[in-house]
Amino acid sequence: MLYTIAVIQGSKMLQNLKSILEKAKSNAETRKFDVNVLAQSRLAPDMFPLVRQVQIACDSIKLGVARVVDQMDIVPKHADTETTIDDLISRINDTLDYLASVSPAMFEGASERRVGTPRWDGKTVSGDEFIVQYALPNLYFHTTTTYAILRHNGVDVGKQDFLGALPLR
Amino acid sequence: MLYTIAVIQGSKMLQNLKSILEKAKSNAETRKFDVNVLAQSRLAPDMFPLVRQVQIACDSIKLGVARVVDQMDIVPKHADTETTIDDLISRINDTLDYLASVSPAMFEGASERRVGTPRWDGKTVSGDEFIVQYALPNLYFHTTTTYAILRHNGVDVGKQDFLGALPLR
Repeated sequence: MLYTIAVIQGSKMLQNLKSILEKAKSNAETRKFDVNVLAQSRLAPDMFPLVRQVQIACDSIKLGVARVVDQMDIVPKHADTETTIDDLISRINDTLDYLASVSPAMFEGASERRVGTPRWDGKTVSGDEFIVQYALPNLYFHTTTTYAILRHNGVDVGKQDFLGALPLR
Repeated sequence: MLYTIAVIQGSKMLQNLKSILEKAKSNAETRKFDVNVLAQSRLAPDMFPLVRQVQIACDSIKLGVARVVDQMDIVPKHADTETTIDDLISRINDTLDYLASVSPAMFEGASERRVGTPRWDGKTVSGDEFIVQYALPNLYFHTTTTYAILRHNGVDVGKQDFLGALPLR
C-alpha cells in the first residue's frame, strides 16, 4: 500500500495542482492581469509565496519517495529558479516523470527502511512513518496553501479541482 | 495499514488542529482581542469561515472511518452548532473519542468494502480509495485552510504545529 499512497496518490495530487495552476492562467486571461503576479502572492508577510509553495509541494513527494526507495543518489535535483506559472507547471511535470519511473518493486523493504532528512541530526523514522506522517502531510499542506492563495486572489478553483476525479462505479 | 493511515494519522492531525486552535487562544489573549472573532474569519467571501473548516475537517475523518468500518448507524452525529473556538475544541475531542473507539479488528474487510456518500447517486469506491483519495485529502485540506486563516490573521502557528511530533530515534 505504501507505493499506492506515495506514488499513485502523490502523482494524482500533483496532477490536481497542475490543473489548479492551469485554471489560474485562464482566470488571469479572463480578468486581464499577468498570471505571474500570483507567483509572488502570499497569505501573510512571513509565509512563503505561491512559487515556493509549489516548489516545496513537489519536493515533499519527490524526496519522500526517493528516500524510502533509497534513490537519493539518482533523484533529479531542482535549483528552485522558477519565477512564472509555466515554470512551475514544468517543475510539476519533471516531478511526475520521476514518480512515474518508480515501480512497485522498488518499494521492497521501503516500509522498514530507516530514513531521515539533513535537518534531523542523524535521527530517523521508518519509511512508512516518513510517507504517512511527513511527506504526504507536507504535500497536502503546500498544495492546499497554493489553492488558498489563488482563492484569496479570486481565482475560480473549487474543491473538485483539489480532490481530482474519484474512481466511482 | 488502512487503520494506521485513517485512525492513527487521522487522530494525530486532529490533535494538531486542536493545538493550533489552542495557540490561537493564547495569541488572542496576548494581542487582546476576542479569539472567537476568528471563528467567522475566511480567506475569500465565497469560502467557508474557520468554524466550518474545523467542522468539515472533523467530519471528513469521522465519516470516512465510519463508512469503511460500516458504523454509519452508530457514529455520533454533530449538529454543526459551534460558534466559539472552545466549541470547536470540544467537537474535535468528540471526534477523537469516536476514533479511539474504533479498533484495528473493525477494519477487517474495510479495504474492499464499497462505500459512497449521499451525493454520489449510489456510486461507490472501495474503502481504500475512500480513505486515500477522499477522506484524508479532505481532512488535510480543511486543517490546512484553518491554519491558513489563522496565519493570515497573524496567529503565530508554525509548520511544526501542523505536522506534530515525529517518532524520531
